[in-house]
Amino acid sequence: MLGRMYEGEICSAARALEVVGERWSLLIVRNALFAGMSRYSEFQRALKIAPNVLAKRLADLVEAGILQQEQGESGSRAEYRPTEKGRDFAPVIVALSEWGDRWAAPDGPPVTYRHRGCGGRTALHAVCADCGETLAPEGIEADVADWVRERKQR
Amino acid sequence: MLGRMYEGEICSAARALEVVGERWSLLIVRNALFAGMSRYSEFQRALKIAPNVLAKRLADLVEAGILQQEQGESGSRAEYRPTEKGRDFAPVIVALSEWGDRWAAPDGPPVTYRHRGCGGRTALHAVCADCGETLAPEGIEADVADWVRERKQR
Repeated sequence: MLGRMYEGEICSAARALEVVGERWSLLIVRNALFAGMSRYSEFQRALKIAPNVLAKRLADLVEAGILQQEQGESGSRAEYRPTEKGRDFAPVIVALSEWGDRWAAPDGPPVTYRHRGCGGRTALHAVCADCGETLAPEGIEADVADWVRERKQR
Repeated sequence: MLGRMYEGEICSAARALEVVGERWSLLIVRNALFAGMSRYSEFQRALKIAPNVLAKRLADLVEAGILQQEQGESGSRAEYRPTEKGRDFAPVIVALSEWGDRWAAPDGPPVTYRHRGCGGRTALHAVCADCGETLAPEGIEADVADWVRERKQR
């Protein structure tokens, strides 16, 4: 988790980054969501992250309500499972990956997100909830809430 | 821009975070993409960011190929416009905002992304490119490329 250094700036995107803006946190959430990992030892083996850093990141993610700690079967080690709040990060990770695959993956996409049913590639579409049109970036505009404008003018 | 501290870890999502993982960079890109801002003075007024920090972030975003510097009309100040690589960040910002609106916006969504045509709300859908099904997080799995597995085993 990162601190909040942008006093006065109100942005849900920035708030989301406070939670997964740290790269290890992002990779832990990615592996919990899409690679079925739940144990400390699995994250450790997959990410080769220093033990003290991994323990801290897992504790932070539990405190932020992204993962919840559950007792493993037959009294074994604790397992970390994504909460609803954590599962809601799935589109963020897919969106970041789509950008990175296109612009920062000279060797090709390292990870492909696939439909668990048919194996097809996952694609993100921005859609208008009213008219159903698929939106290009140029077709989207930001509408700042009145209470934000008022607060900024103070 | 942040450094790369996760040697050996290959993830397009993490690579994307290197570019907009710093919050001021994210907010600058957001305002360039969705609020039509292009001038130093506009970003300065909207974000109330320290001049030296703003100048550095804009230069970094130009160097990363996210913004390009253009000469303003009639010899006026330079303008910063999103490149194609920058416009491709739109879904990332919308995805981060959707999460933040739901989980980290006690006063309600500060910014709503709307269809420039009809004013409807923008919603992101994860869709299977093969069968067209709309995918919940549980319906998505990560498929790691062979070359990544091989590199990890070395």
